[in-house]
Amino acid sequence: MTRMEKFKKTERNRVKRVSKRAEYDREIIYQIVDEALICHVGFVQDGQPFVIPTIHARDGDRLIFHGAQASRLLKHAEKGFELSVNITLLDGLVLARSVFHHSMNYRSVVLFGKGHLVKEEKEKFRCLRVLTEHIMPGRWQDVRQPNPREMKATSVVVMAIEDASAKIRTGPPVDDEEDYLLPVWSGVLPIKQAVDAPIADPLLNSQTDLPAYIRQYLKR
Amino acid sequence: MTRMEKFKKTERNRVKRVSKRAEYDREIIYQIVDEALICHVGFVQDGQPFVIPTIHARDGDRLIFHGAQASRLLKHAEKGFELSVNITLLDGLVLARSVFHHSMNYRSVVLFGKGHLVKEEKEKFRCLRVLTEHIMPGRWQDVRQPNPREMKATSVVVMAIEDASAKIRTGPPVDDEEDYLLPVWSGVLPIKQAVDAPIADPLLNSQTDLPAYIRQYLKR
Repeated sequence: MTRMEKFKKTERNRVKRVSKRAEYDREIIYQIVDEALICHVGFVQDGQPFVIPTIHARDGDRLIFHGAQASRLLKHAEKGFELSVNITLLDGLVLARSVFHHSMNYRSVVLFGKGHLVKEEKEKFRCLRVLTEHIMPGRWQDVRQPNPREMKATSVVVMAIEDASAKIRTGPPVDDEEDYLLPVWSGVLPIKQAVDAPIADPLLNSQTDLPAYIRQYLKR
Repeated sequence: MTRMEKFKKTERNRVKRVSKRAEYDREIIYQIVDEALICHVGFVQDGQPFVIPTIHARDGDRLIFHGAQASRLLKHAEKGFELSVNITLLDGLVLARSVFHHSMNYRSVVLFGKGHLVKEEKEKFRCLRVLTEHIMPGRWQDVRQPNPREMKATSVVVMAIEDASAKIRTGPPVDDEEDYLLPVWSGVLPIKQAVDAPIADPLLNSQTDLPAYIRQYLKR
């Protein structure tokens, strides 16, 4: 199978509303996936929908999830049922001159696929490293890595990305022609996920400095 | 039916993992709902799970959603199918001395219920006001309110909250006893959703000042 630069439009990933905001380009979709710290995974159990937030990491054309063996999400996902993942980065409040044209600037991705449990120990270990490094590059090498007991208590599930699409809105509000004359402030309030000053563990040895990779992280 | 201060634990809202982080208190759950700008709605269509991000507002014991009449979410939700809503506020990265004890500080809520379409014009109008005021208090009175054509193009769905629970983590990392001796920086990187300086619409009349309610919003 040739790897396509764009995802094919299917019934489940096709953006139905405001198709000018739709993106099927793999690179654009993956940039959003990689920037996000958490995703929301949807699944169906006995006809009931569930949505559970979790951390993820992308590994090529797959998503990695992990958690306690007993977790509802992992226990379900490892059985190969259909999963639906949404990742949304909120970029701003779009304040228009009319209620109707209010909106948000955002980058949102949906991804579909089935999960499978990673059993092989070396691959499972590698997946945990990819997850850790996705959240905080440099952390894996600095801390104590998982021991056999911890490996056993942890489930790793990967989902091959079958279908995906992104929906993106940027820029100022778009109002109806006649509303531009209204004396109303309009524009965008940019929103971002910001990191505040680190709070050291009260039990931290006072000689332990903040490592370079965390200082680097704070500058993002 | 007496309104309970706590939600009953049921099979779908019971927090399965780390039950000390579980909360069933209505007030605590609703504070998280009210602080969030967006939620993730999960539903099932022909056996396929979908997760769609959208804005919401709480109206007593109900959630209000809105969107274009043609939206996948709204068209599905108005038919009374089961919905599952997740709202997650990310508060920090918890950096422990071992990979295993890394975590996040968060406040996360799940809510379950069925949607129904709001048809009555006055009630629909009121719901749109509640939604607008949830995102930006003061905005509704300042801008042009929906006209009949816009009302017709918009669907409003409310979901009565049947079951709900919250899962909350706060505080520093908790490491294994023997790991406290490791020379590893540990602590929390606080994360918050921050608002940057407003970007006025390039087409804004230069005499229009930023209103007091937006200046107030920026101070939050």
